[in-house]
Amino acid sequence: MPSYKAPLRDMRFLMNEVFDYPKHYANLPGGEEATPDLVDAILEEAAKYCEQVLAPLNQPGDEEGCHFNNGEVTTPKGFKEAYEQYVAGGWQGLNYPAEFGGQGLPMSMGLFRSEMMGTANWSFTMYPGLSIGCINTIMLHGDEGQKATFLPPLVEGRWTGTMCLTEPQCGTDLGQVKTRAEPQPDGSYKLTGTKIFISAGEHDLAENIIHIVLARLPDAPAGTRGISLFIVPKFIANADGTTGDRNTVAAGSIEHKMGIRASATCVINFDEATGYLIGPPNKGLECMFTFMNTARIGTAIQGVAHAEQSYQGSLPYAKERRSMRALSGKKEPEQVADALIHHGDVRRMLLTQKAVAEGGRAMVYFAAQYADNMAVGITNGDKETYDYWDDKLGFLTPILKGCLTELGLEAANLGMQVFGGHGYIKEHGMEQIARDARISTLYEGTTGIQALDLLGRKVLLTTKGKAVRDFTADIAKFCRDHVGNKQMRPFIWELTKIATQWNYLTVRIMLQARKDREFVGTASYDFLMYSGYATLAFFWAKMAAVAFEKLEKGGNDEPAFYQAKIQTAEFYFERLLPRTKSHAETMLKPTKSLMQLNADHFNFE
Amino acid sequence: MPSYKAPLRDMRFLMNEVFDYPKHYANLPGGEEATPDLVDAILEEAAKYCEQVLAPLNQPGDEEGCHFNNGEVTTPKGFKEAYEQYVAGGWQGLNYPAEFGGQGLPMSMGLFRSEMMGTANWSFTMYPGLSIGCINTIMLHGDEGQKATFLPPLVEGRWTGTMCLTEPQCGTDLGQVKTRAEPQPDGSYKLTGTKIFISAGEHDLAENIIHIVLARLPDAPAGTRGISLFIVPKFIANADGTTGDRNTVAAGSIEHKMGIRASATCVINFDEATGYLIGPPNKGLECMFTFMNTARIGTAIQGVAHAEQSYQGSLPYAKERRSMRALSGKKEPEQVADALIHHGDVRRMLLTQKAVAEGGRAMVYFAAQYADNMAVGITNGDKETYDYWDDKLGFLTPILKGCLTELGLEAANLGMQVFGGHGYIKEHGMEQIARDARISTLYEGTTGIQALDLLGRKVLLTTKGKAVRDFTADIAKFCRDHVGNKQMRPFIWELTKIATQWNYLTVRIMLQARKDREFVGTASYDFLMYSGYATLAFFWAKMAAVAFEKLEKGGNDEPAFYQAKIQTAEFYFERLLPRTKSHAETMLKPTKSLMQLNADHFNFE
Repeated sequence: MPSYKAPLRDMRFLMNEVFDYPKHYANLPGGEEATPDLVDAILEEAAKYCEQVLAPLNQPGDEEGCHFNNGEVTTPKGFKEAYEQYVAGGWQGLNYPAEFGGQGLPMSMGLFRSEMMGTANWSFTMYPGLSIGCINTIMLHGDEGQKATFLPPLVEGRWTGTMCLTEPQCGTDLGQVKTRAEPQPDGSYKLTGTKIFISAGEHDLAENIIHIVLARLPDAPAGTRGISLFIVPKFIANADGTTGDRNTVAAGSIEHKMGIRASATCVINFDEATGYLIGPPNKGLECMFTFMNTARIGTAIQGVAHAEQSYQGSLPYAKERRSMRALSGKKEPEQVADALIHHGDVRRMLLTQKAVAEGGRAMVYFAAQYADNMAVGITNGDKETYDYWDDKLGFLTPILKGCLTELGLEAANLGMQVFGGHGYIKEHGMEQIARDARISTLYEGTTGIQALDLLGRKVLLTTKGKAVRDFTADIAKFCRDHVGNKQMRPFIWELTKIATQWNYLTVRIMLQARKDREFVGTASYDFLMYSGYATLAFFWAKMAAVAFEKLEKGGNDEPAFYQAKIQTAEFYFERLLPRTKSHAETMLKPTKSLMQLNADHFNFE
Repeated sequence: MPSYKAPLRDMRFLMNEVFDYPKHYANLPGGEEATPDLVDAILEEAAKYCEQVLAPLNQPGDEEGCHFNNGEVTTPKGFKEAYEQYVAGGWQGLNYPAEFGGQGLPMSMGLFRSEMMGTANWSFTMYPGLSIGCINTIMLHGDEGQKATFLPPLVEGRWTGTMCLTEPQCGTDLGQVKTRAEPQPDGSYKLTGTKIFISAGEHDLAENIIHIVLARLPDAPAGTRGISLFIVPKFIANADGTTGDRNTVAAGSIEHKMGIRASATCVINFDEATGYLIGPPNKGLECMFTFMNTARIGTAIQGVAHAEQSYQGSLPYAKERRSMRALSGKKEPEQVADALIHHGDVRRMLLTQKAVAEGGRAMVYFAAQYADNMAVGITNGDKETYDYWDDKLGFLTPILKGCLTELGLEAANLGMQVFGGHGYIKEHGMEQIARDARISTLYEGTTGIQALDLLGRKVLLTTKGKAVRDFTADIAKFCRDHVGNKQMRPFIWELTKIATQWNYLTVRIMLQARKDREFVGTASYDFLMYSGYATLAFFWAKMAAVAFEKLEKGGNDEPAFYQAKIQTAEFYFERLLPRTKSHAETMLKPTKSLMQLNADHFNFE
């Protein structure tokens, strides 16, 4: 089983050397408390919890899975105790306001904690992870009574939350939601319907579970404009913060899944369950989507997590396992054969995992600053600030979620591949990573949906290409700033070409899409992946620039760390970035080659 | 659970219209018996067995897995009866000589049968599949007594076989094999050692299991030059064809695997087990590799099988499941939403699976003619014929095995992706395809090993580039033959460019590799994938040419079939072939970006 060691050195590199988090936090209203010492202490404490408590439960949790018995869900052995430690450590409230019992730290701190937890044990992390969506929704859209009742126990972690969107007949297309909410004389509602794929929908970790539910009022218009949002607690909440009667909401079963087997995915039946409207009637989808960008970054982290986990699993194996001799001659003449790490193609697989994990982490840490700024807008009720940063974040979100989860899955498969046939055997733990990673391109909007969100919505509809222009303007500025640096020149040259081409492709698509609306759909996946590689290139160049600077200055005790960053950046630019070539060519192809085949002629018997 | 329908229409298209199998069989010494009527009847009978017997056992077999109890392995419910039907139907002997009880049909017939069986139920197909390697080895290298003793029951299917190569310390690097063989006064040997990953190593389907084992004689030189091949039966074979004493070879355990869970993967312990030398001493590896090309085509078929299976699973779902509206307007206005198949990105996923399944099948059917010709060389003891066709096959083998299994895995993942979140749920059966497919890039030589075999051995070492020159000469001839056809011109133009570039890349690599031996390793994976896409392009163009011709001629009752072929070819050329762009660029990059990072600097804590 791969053990987990939190990549604190890399996290500190990003926080302190690349993105200057100390300054970012200092400038953040309410962020002053996040002093470098405090941040460091928190990260180290979180690392310990993840390494020592969560990671050892990962493989046994997969083996055991969850148990369903008569409506009750039991999580795997050890999960309950680990969750108690999580609550006792105050981890759930890390980035929530003190008024609800939180520690009031910036939102990004929650993301860093989630990355470590998720890498150690993604299934476990789903339980507190789902609470985040629930807390955010109530914090932003709940009335004072709802906040006072639900937030303190949720922020404490004593209660957990869910997001109940999907129904058997619809996932992406939420306009098809059928769950009904009947108003009651006391102002509450009775909800009836079935939700599926509800992560953390039922379990034995918390005293109560608070469901956030999409449903229709009796007079609601059809489609997406007739959906409202409700709070439906498993146990009715008493005014004193204790739990009262059992509500008529219950798990009907749990799903048997390919991976994340220790995470309970439930069918949840609402049988005239008591619920409370949250936010304005029929505006449920808008309310729900408020924090969608942050939620999706939470899933993007899964790509980083599995790339890191897979890399940490396959690197030691590549150093220990000996097979054949290096092509350029014996590297370990005293051994029966050379270690795998001396073979070029094995290095390709290791470096791909490394480049995805570290490059993806950089993307997340960058976006996390946007998220912090956006959160300030919310806290201060400053809509303009919120909108500005949410838009900036909104452009990056589908790129992060769509591209990092695809690459995380690739990395997980490469980790298995390094092990050869042994990668297929459960005991080594590598195949679990690939199974766990597989969900990440499916939930929280499939890759196809991210692609449409990016190209159709964020780039074309909302900003008419400005989103790309703005982001590439930042890249262009970076290029100008570093073009004088001879060592950086190969990166700058490629990056400039990519930034230019990205805009060119956007314009070409915009023009084509006017003539042929299917063009957005047929180009979207390639545009998404292109954007992902382009964004990763930007951050690898940024990291290389910092590393060159550190080496130039000298005096640091870890030149090898910086050297490795530069060499990984070189690997990225030479061997992963060229994938943009194919995507650039394919996305501009006419829609015909995808759309012409008659739906009835896809197969013949 | 996806049901299985054998793609007989597509198989007949390839056999009768693209590759002219009737003529090929008619010209094949001993192939005269394979008349079109007989071939057709056999394929239909095989299809029935696969659809009705094997496919329904696929999902339950995965769920139940194999059972290990005190050295005995029990296969999942229904496997024993299905195997009895297989034996009763004479399926194992299809392409083996009548003198050993076979039906004497060409080798290719065995491959077509295996494709259908493997698509219906890959795990099941492993059991008779492993016998093939064993039968081939004994047929080619066994003495008359060994042939007489072992071949009839193996060809009948009453006994099955295995190939025991891998040991705990080595898989690829067989020079590290440690299993010892001590000569006995009676001319037999006592084998002692442990083999792992032995598919079909122990099970309850057959009366006896014949292990082909790599081991070392006491005086053997170190490394690959000191390995010999032995026959080690589970039960000692009596002269009358019955089984005698239990030999001291036994399964120590079975592996718990990600997929192909109904296939028993065993640790096999040899404890002074009685064995018989087969072939010359110390020439075991050479003997073993005689049929390696055919064995690897057998695994290449797994790529086709899972692409087909995944396509058959996801296509009906894409037609039934309704979500959102098509970008160019409602396609099914009377429905709540449009079916998935009307969305461009879903079509991309469907057509990728289709292009891999049908294009891959074409590659296999082409290579199968080489295999038939090679087999004639063996039957007639005509080494020149054998060498000629084995070389031609040898060039295609790593391309087929390496590239089709990678693409099969991609297709299987796309099949899941079409299902969205439902793809992750076991009951739909899509995630099983992805898990089953995952082994295919790992066993029978990983993708990395196929890549080195192709570039290092088949292209550079053995033929100094001639293998590529010869194959692209065939492509060039095809292009010349069709350049006059206006409809074919877009394909011909791209294909000509690819054929030229393929040679150019080969020469560039050859020159670079002289200066830097690591270049072969760092370029190999990209060269493999490039070669795969180039080869697929050739066969898609071939299929398109036939389809255009059929449409031109008219008079056939299925113009839509041919139209779909052409449109799928267009999809392939426009949207998959451009991947060669990235591979072409990456493979020529200097080795530095892969080789420079110090093995100790891959991570920092």
